[in-house]
Amino acid sequence: MKLKDNLIAEHNQRSIDLHRSKFEFLKTQIIDFESIISKLIDFQIAIPSWALGNGGTRFGRFPGGGEPRNLEEKIEDVGLIHKLNQSGNAISLHIPWDIPKDYQAIRDLAKEHGLRFDAMNSNTFQDQKGQEESYKYGSLQHVDPAVRKQAIDHNIEVIKHGIELGSKSLTVWLADGSCFPGQLNFRTAFQNTLASLREIYASLPEDWKMFIEYKAYEPNFYSTTVGDWGQSLLYASKLGPKAFTLVDLGHHLPNANIEQIVSLLLMEGKLGGFHFNDSKYGDDDLTAGSIKPYQLFLIFNELIEGMNDRKMNHANDLGWMIDASHNVKDPLEDLLQSVEAIMIAYTQALIVDRAALKEAQLKNDVARAQEILQDSFRTDVRPLVAEARLRAGGALDPIGLFRKLEVRQELIKERGFETVATGL
Amino acid sequence: MKLKDNLIAEHNQRSIDLHRSKFEFLKTQIIDFESIISKLIDFQIAIPSWALGNGGTRFGRFPGGGEPRNLEEKIEDVGLIHKLNQSGNAISLHIPWDIPKDYQAIRDLAKEHGLRFDAMNSNTFQDQKGQEESYKYGSLQHVDPAVRKQAIDHNIEVIKHGIELGSKSLTVWLADGSCFPGQLNFRTAFQNTLASLREIYASLPEDWKMFIEYKAYEPNFYSTTVGDWGQSLLYASKLGPKAFTLVDLGHHLPNANIEQIVSLLLMEGKLGGFHFNDSKYGDDDLTAGSIKPYQLFLIFNELIEGMNDRKMNHANDLGWMIDASHNVKDPLEDLLQSVEAIMIAYTQALIVDRAALKEAQLKNDVARAQEILQDSFRTDVRPLVAEARLRAGGALDPIGLFRKLEVRQELIKERGFETVATGL
Amino acid sequence: MKLKDNLIAEHNQRSIDLHRSKFEFLKTQIIDFESIISKLIDFQIAIPSWALGNGGTRFGRFPGGGEPRNLEEKIEDVGLIHKLNQSGNAISLHIPWDIPKDYQAIRDLAKEHGLRFDAMNSNTFQDQKGQEESYKYGSLQHVDPAVRKQAIDHNIEVIKHGIELGSKSLTVWLADGSCFPGQLNFRTAFQNTLASLREIYASLPEDWKMFIEYKAYEPNFYSTTVGDWGQSLLYASKLGPKAFTLVDLGHHLPNANIEQIVSLLLMEGKLGGFHFNDSKYGDDDLTAGSIKPYQLFLIFNELIEGMNDRKMNHANDLGWMIDASHNVKDPLEDLLQSVEAIMIAYTQALIVDRAALKEAQLKNDVARAQEILQDSFRTDVRPLVAEARLRAGGALDPIGLFRKLEVRQELIKERGFETVATGL
Amino acid sequence: MKLKDNLIAEHNQRSIDLHRSKFEFLKTQIIDFESIISKLIDFQIAIPSWALGNGGTRFGRFPGGGEPRNLEEKIEDVGLIHKLNQSGNAISLHIPWDIPKDYQAIRDLAKEHGLRFDAMNSNTFQDQKGQEESYKYGSLQHVDPAVRKQAIDHNIEVIKHGIELGSKSLTVWLADGSCFPGQLNFRTAFQNTLASLREIYASLPEDWKMFIEYKAYEPNFYSTTVGDWGQSLLYASKLGPKAFTLVDLGHHLPNANIEQIVSLLLMEGKLGGFHFNDSKYGDDDLTAGSIKPYQLFLIFNELIEGMNDRKMNHANDLGWMIDASHNVKDPLEDLLQSVEAIMIAYTQALIVDRAALKEAQLKNDVARAQEILQDSFRTDVRPLVAEARLRAGGALDPIGLFRKLEVRQELIKERGFETVATGL
Repeated sequence: MKLKDNLIAEHNQRSIDLHRSKFEFLKTQIIDFESIISKLIDFQIAIPSWALGNGGTRFGRFPGGGEPRNLEEKIEDVGLIHKLNQSGNAISLHIPWDIPKDYQAIRDLAKEHGLRFDAMNSNTFQDQKGQEESYKYGSLQHVDPAVRKQAIDHNIEVIKHGIELGSKSLTVWLADGSCFPGQLNFRTAFQNTLASLREIYASLPEDWKMFIEYKAYEPNFYSTTVGDWGQSLLYASKLGPKAFTLVDLGHHLPNANIEQIVSLLLMEGKLGGFHFNDSKYGDDDLTAGSIKPYQLFLIFNELIEGMNDRKMNHANDLGWMIDASHNVKDPLEDLLQSVEAIMIAYTQALIVDRAALKEAQLKNDVARAQEILQDSFRTDVRPLVAEARLRAGGALDPIGLFRKLEVRQELIKERGFETVATGL
Repeated sequence: MKLKDNLIAEHNQRSIDLHRSKFEFLKTQIIDFESIISKLIDFQIAIPSWALGNGGTRFGRFPGGGEPRNLEEKIEDVGLIHKLNQSGNAISLHIPWDIPKDYQAIRDLAKEHGLRFDAMNSNTFQDQKGQEESYKYGSLQHVDPAVRKQAIDHNIEVIKHGIELGSKSLTVWLADGSCFPGQLNFRTAFQNTLASLREIYASLPEDWKMFIEYKAYEPNFYSTTVGDWGQSLLYASKLGPKAFTLVDLGHHLPNANIEQIVSLLLMEGKLGGFHFNDSKYGDDDLTAGSIKPYQLFLIFNELIEGMNDRKMNHANDLGWMIDASHNVKDPLEDLLQSVEAIMIAYTQALIVDRAALKEAQLKNDVARAQEILQDSFRTDVRPLVAEARLRAGGALDPIGLFRKLEVRQELIKERGFETVATGL
Repeated sequence: MKLKDNLIAEHNQRSIDLHRSKFEFLKTQIIDFESIISKLIDFQIAIPSWALGNGGTRFGRFPGGGEPRNLEEKIEDVGLIHKLNQSGNAISLHIPWDIPKDYQAIRDLAKEHGLRFDAMNSNTFQDQKGQEESYKYGSLQHVDPAVRKQAIDHNIEVIKHGIELGSKSLTVWLADGSCFPGQLNFRTAFQNTLASLREIYASLPEDWKMFIEYKAYEPNFYSTTVGDWGQSLLYASKLGPKAFTLVDLGHHLPNANIEQIVSLLLMEGKLGGFHFNDSKYGDDDLTAGSIKPYQLFLIFNELIEGMNDRKMNHANDLGWMIDASHNVKDPLEDLLQSVEAIMIAYTQALIVDRAALKEAQLKNDVARAQEILQDSFRTDVRPLVAEARLRAGGALDPIGLFRKLEVRQELIKERGFETVATGL
Repeated sequence: MKLKDNLIAEHNQRSIDLHRSKFEFLKTQIIDFESIISKLIDFQIAIPSWALGNGGTRFGRFPGGGEPRNLEEKIEDVGLIHKLNQSGNAISLHIPWDIPKDYQAIRDLAKEHGLRFDAMNSNTFQDQKGQEESYKYGSLQHVDPAVRKQAIDHNIEVIKHGIELGSKSLTVWLADGSCFPGQLNFRTAFQNTLASLREIYASLPEDWKMFIEYKAYEPNFYSTTVGDWGQSLLYASKLGPKAFTLVDLGHHLPNANIEQIVSLLLMEGKLGGFHFNDSKYGDDDLTAGSIKPYQLFLIFNELIEGMNDRKMNHANDLGWMIDASHNVKDPLEDLLQSVEAIMIAYTQALIVDRAALKEAQLKNDVARAQEILQDSFRTDVRPLVAEARLRAGGALDPIGLFRKLEVRQELIKERGFETVATGL
């Protein structure tokens, strides 16, 4: 299914006056709004191929209908999102779930939808049918070199698929760890993992990055071998200049100050990218900004501060991706909500008066520093985000249009109700 | 120190045009804004007498200067806050820190500042000079009836002070609990506490309420005898219709869903009041809304939903109080920030489209329900709050005026630098 | 597969002398050891039918081989455990996973293995094939009466199966809750759930109990409708004398003091039973006693104190069950380890010098109270547990014998490698 | 007050037979017990000077009586502990609380008690009377170079005191951080802190170590500038070979796997030392082993594994110290309990069958690995610890003797009831 351009234009027409009046009002309060709009248009968030269907928990999964049945339909779904909001021009693939049969055809399809291929994701946390060795006790950390080799080879294969598709990065998320005290020698697990990563790193093309994602727990419930930012940074530092830490917002212990972690990783030149989602308890994988929107803003506040300091390009120099699970909402609506929340947080962070903030910090004027951040956060920046979307050719109200056009019903008609996205 | 009326008017004059333009714009988006403004004018938050000076931690305390030296100066400080924002017309006293020498004089002073006396607070978590029995091992829970009697008598004395001042409620926060396994028999501790509370309850005037505050931990680090809402509700239910649960936002285990607790306590008719503050780790006692503003909004969303359902008066039927500690900010600025954040959250909750929300809930339209709440939260309601303040005679920008008038410098001149508010 | 009696006797013979010497030594330190042994022999822990195969997470599942393929084989597996340790004489069934085709045959089989049927478990957290209504948005809480009715009917059907098998209790664990703010009206969800539970309660035979299990989160990640002990107690109190709270050790927020909860529920006469497991992060469902053995002891300490005070029978007056997930260990070995850890904690709690503890508490002698508990916990009570097992006809070293007899290999031979227990 | 040697001998005489019988029995189960006893005799834990009086919380402090009034009496108290258990031969001083007036006299006094001077502790988290600059907004991180200079100078002064006393290490614990978003630029705070530490490091004698202690939160409640092991390791790595990370058990986010952190820091050659205590919620500073004794054992298990691998000397190559607060117990009894719990955990870790554990790990025999650790932990090693104490000249039952001799009553007689240890 593909949306026609004129549908969006028609839709926008109906609310353009209201939008204009809000935007004009907001303009009076924002300095430099043209530069912000241009940054918003450039800012693109990759959509993971596995988040296009309904997710589930170990207790069950409730399908929603019309889920993509193959890589082509996943690309189509991301294309739909991008068409609507013009902010999701990339898809992130997961191997082996998304192995293309015909690279050229897939590249063409993506191009047709205006999409590129973001970070490639390997999978060594599940056993695939017919696989020689099992990952029950880990992959890159495994005590058995044969298992490690299989996992290394798999990652190298993922890189190869990525090269064919024009991706420029590999995300390594490891479930490796242990469920019980005594199960692992932590040091050996670290060293095995490091040695394995080194072999993968050696296969990385010159212009690629390797993202090392950390996670505090789950699916292992006693220790995780890349368990926090400190461990990820250790690996990345030992590996070399192409290795970076990837931050997933749901992968921390309770109460962690993620914005500080972001700032320090940027300081060290080792922040690689982001997995956006939100959570209340653990790796809940909820819609970005649905639980702690202020935290999301504070994280963007540090991202901008740190990237500006390093003269990094907001849009291109870090990997931006959503990683969420849609258990009770339509995946496409959920993703549209996530992207909107991210764009809002980014905008709020862009309008922070950085000179005033710095001055307040230098004076230890804590109340003033708080006022400055809150002033940005409390500003209703939605008209700015909408304006950027409008100028880029997107819909003023993406979810509204999605519903009005009955996209989901259409997809169910095409694909059926009990479909399951490959791999989930 | 007392601010003159014309200072506020002059101050407002300077920014009235900008305010008008924002307010006029916002009006177009808000249905029923007059009724909201009237609710905002009615809504008053009590200021605790102990939060007017700088707080500290067990590691130290850094004075800020000009702190009130006695009850009279505390009333004066709350008067200043109320003068500026017209939203803090009550002071909550702590006995023995705030024992009035002359009730009539204190009543008159409060009246002069437009203040009433909110909940009275007893103190059985510290030993006072010359006190017969020690609270080292608890007060109302104590194994020794003599200690319990002393603590009961103290609470009854607090009620008496409150009667003289026109207060209508007693807040009982107990530090009672244990630091080590084995220290307490939990059941005996509960039953002793219940029996003690019954004696205090028996001394409560007919039109008074007793608020039973719960707290997960600190200063006891193994168990607390009124440790969570379940325990508080048990006490309140056993005590009778004048006993209620008091919720302090910082008194929960990590990740607790406080808004659900609020909803259920309202359902049971047992929510008594609130202590506002914010926290990232424990009972951090930070400025309301400074860490988790969306949670604050969600709590108000439940408060309004539940109070409306029970036809309760927002302004009068629950006790609203700030309970924070100001370690690095000017206490008065900090309190102004807290009140502002509370008014904003209250306003955002007032503009929620409740009919639409109910409809979304009945359809399990989760994405829509989220949109409805987020739409309210993302709206910049500050002009509404400012308009209500303006109409009530307060300042458009309370902190701005506080700084412009150099109130703190004035207070330091009057009171000195190394003052300590009685009791802290 | 069924173990022959003489195998156990032979096995015990080989280590009997070592056991005797340890036991004789321990005897000199324990007062009243005969009465303890007799309590240990009586104490039986039910095994859930769903814990006999390998569990998994949302990220995958690694089979271990030889898992039971049907109800008969599950009973056989519990029979094996019970044969080895003589402490697991009951199986807890899950409907619809364990619907018997022939009640009499199943009853006979259980009898043959010395087993009875513990609490019946209903399932309204998953959709079954061909089911009319979906539980995607809850079951007993659902806004749609048709869904509630389906869930109520299912629970009543579960009771009927239980009556046929001689069970005496129904455990209701609900996944009901919400994933996002706004999704639910908390109060309506509570009231719908209560009304639904009332209908189920009305179908409960006179001599049955209903256990209402609470859980803080998962699979819902914003709110849970029976979310903590306070909520469970509210339901149980409103329902009536046959309704009780069930405590699962993994269902709390971080740092919760579970032993205090246990004590208070006993005080209220509303503790119904236990699900044993252990956890570091969330509902990790690890082997009992594998992470926090001291907490397990402290819980038993409260159980014994509270049950003795109410003159309850340790073995019969509460429901004892393991509820764990075996992701990386042989499920039968894991269950043997859990039972052993539970028996050890129970024994340690039995040898606490309660008179001395009470005296220390009355004197606020905190250091002494701690010493008393630690003295029991630090005592190596394994010989006592082994002696009880020996006298009951079990193996001195259940896991050792399980391995020596190559039970798992035998089961794999019988049942194959890639089997999956029904329902998982 | 000083205990006479013969008092201990007499005391031991009374229980020697019972001890002998227990020890002889345990000997039969322990391989290599002589080598373990010798390790236990060597293992000494430093006592912090600030833990000899009663601690408190921000809510108050309850004195216990007989607290040391000056450095001399603090040394005397540690001497008492060491006399009783022969495991606490060092005192850790805090400047400015413990500035000696006469180095030689203090050195002589310590020698008389068999004590040496462990790590020196600086204090930049409080303002001292007459101090030029305030640490309200941090010390080594401060935006103002004058404040940083003052804090640097203070640390250098602490080193000088330490040199005079024969100490060999400086522990830097910083309260530096922020209470509100926006207050700090995290990167600048880190860089200022690093630059300050570099100046202190430059003043460190060749044979000294610098311990950089991390803490997640408190007294700052939004961010801490040395907030976790990752940050501490970054500082230590950038500083050089004399800088190490110090782990305090209470300074982590909820559920942190501290034993893994220990293992990785050892792997990196950057673990410097330990502050022992226990906690349920935050930095509760409870008696070591009183809440999570299995965690304490697991930490020692990693310490021994990692130190053995690096051929480190258990007794000398890391700094071992208690850091606890005694709010409801006699400080000396509490410290005796902590030392006992530490010695027990150390012993349990020493008897782990490391060859078998390694074999189980190499086979992924998770159940067996768990059994091996649990077997050590469940063994009652108290007779071994007592035997080591006996051979070293200590008391078989230190707390028993402490009480029998009425030491506290004696100290109260000498020092009075309402004394306060300097600095607290």
